[in-house]
Amino acid sequence: MKKQNLIDALYNCIAACNTCASACLGEENVKMMADCIRTDIICAEICATTAKLVAMDSSFAKEMVALCQKACKECGDECAKHDHDHCKKCAEACRKCEDACKTYAA
Amino acid sequence: MKKQNLIDALYNCIAACNTCASACLGEENVKMMADCIRTDIICAEICATTAKLVAMDSSFAKEMVALCQKACKECGDECAKHDHDHCKKCAEACRKCEDACKTYAA
Amino acid sequence: MKKQNLIDALYNCIAACNTCASACLGEENVKMMADCIRTDIICAEICATTAKLVAMDSSFAKEMVALCQKACKECGDECAKHDHDHCKKCAEACRKCEDACKTYAA
Amino acid sequence: MKKQNLIDALYNCIAACNTCASACLGEENVKMMADCIRTDIICAEICATTAKLVAMDSSFAKEMVALCQKACKECGDECAKHDHDHCKKCAEACRKCEDACKTYAA
Repeated sequence: MKKQNLIDALYNCIAACNTCASACLGEENVKMMADCIRTDIICAEICATTAKLVAMDSSFAKEMVALCQKACKECGDECAKHDHDHCKKCAEACRKCEDACKTYAA
Repeated sequence: MKKQNLIDALYNCIAACNTCASACLGEENVKMMADCIRTDIICAEICATTAKLVAMDSSFAKEMVALCQKACKECGDECAKHDHDHCKKCAEACRKCEDACKTYAA
Repeated sequence: MKKQNLIDALYNCIAACNTCASACLGEENVKMMADCIRTDIICAEICATTAKLVAMDSSFAKEMVALCQKACKECGDECAKHDHDHCKKCAEACRKCEDACKTYAA
Repeated sequence: MKKQNLIDALYNCIAACNTCASACLGEENVKMMADCIRTDIICAEICATTAKLVAMDSSFAKEMVALCQKACKECGDECAKHDHDHCKKCAEACRKCEDACKTYAA
């Protein structure tokens, strides 16, 4: 089901973003990871609200999903620039969530 | 300052929505308040994410504020239908937040 | 892994609570569901913060997990009183999350 | 009123933490700010859930306020180590929120 798939993808993405942000803060070169930490925080926040609106069938769900798709793309693109395992996992979770947003909107 | 005014209005709105939702759940006629509880929950959620994105100067702040303006209007309109004190306070907080969103976007 | 299991259980619980709260608001007898809606909202909120603290290995994770275990028990007990499908699913998700909190703490 | 004072202090603290985290990510020496960013994220998250539980008069409000008091102390102590204006403002907001938690609990 499109709705359940999206909700699963959103929570998987939130967990990956939170894990990545925390791991980035512990990396040797934190400055290089600053944009990654920022997009992780923003993406996790937007995904959480999107998940609530979708689960509750809010009249604003579609608009929120459209915004979430962009936030996942931004965060996935940023994470994909880095070789850390947590960044690669986060990039993948973001891509899957971006796709799930696209499928839901269609 | 437009940014600080918006953040203040957002948090004031969240507090009013949470208080209103909780009080509505304790009213004699809960069924009559069902839409009010729903819009309170959604509005508080959207305002919280908007406040974080605005505070962090996210590239998605503007879009989120535009969505928030609509959520505040929806919740304010619903609360304005009811005579409970918590609904009237919430309607006022929503209106002020809707205006602060409009001013920020301008 | 205990940490990943907990995070999965937390997000599953949040989704079930949000779905249950929304469905309860649409039931014929909303008044009978008022406590269920309230515990759904509180449980989802506590689970979300717990998931973030656990993913980030916060020094406050253990205390938050202990509180979350109680919130899941409260919400699971309330949902178990009702025959609606969404309540039964939520009760089960809460029980699993309560268990995952217990296992993580051990 | 103790409850309204606490809610105001909590939202003021969340806004200061989000602003501080974002500004820290833009500082020249991000590595030096890593702990500050981490405590900002955790403190904002805990304060948000505390505000919701207090506004809704949740049975878990007291326990959450006790945890929040510690999170505000941790974040305030960390921010106080740094000379940036956003850190000083955040340290002050954390101290006030820590005090409001103490007063509420008493």
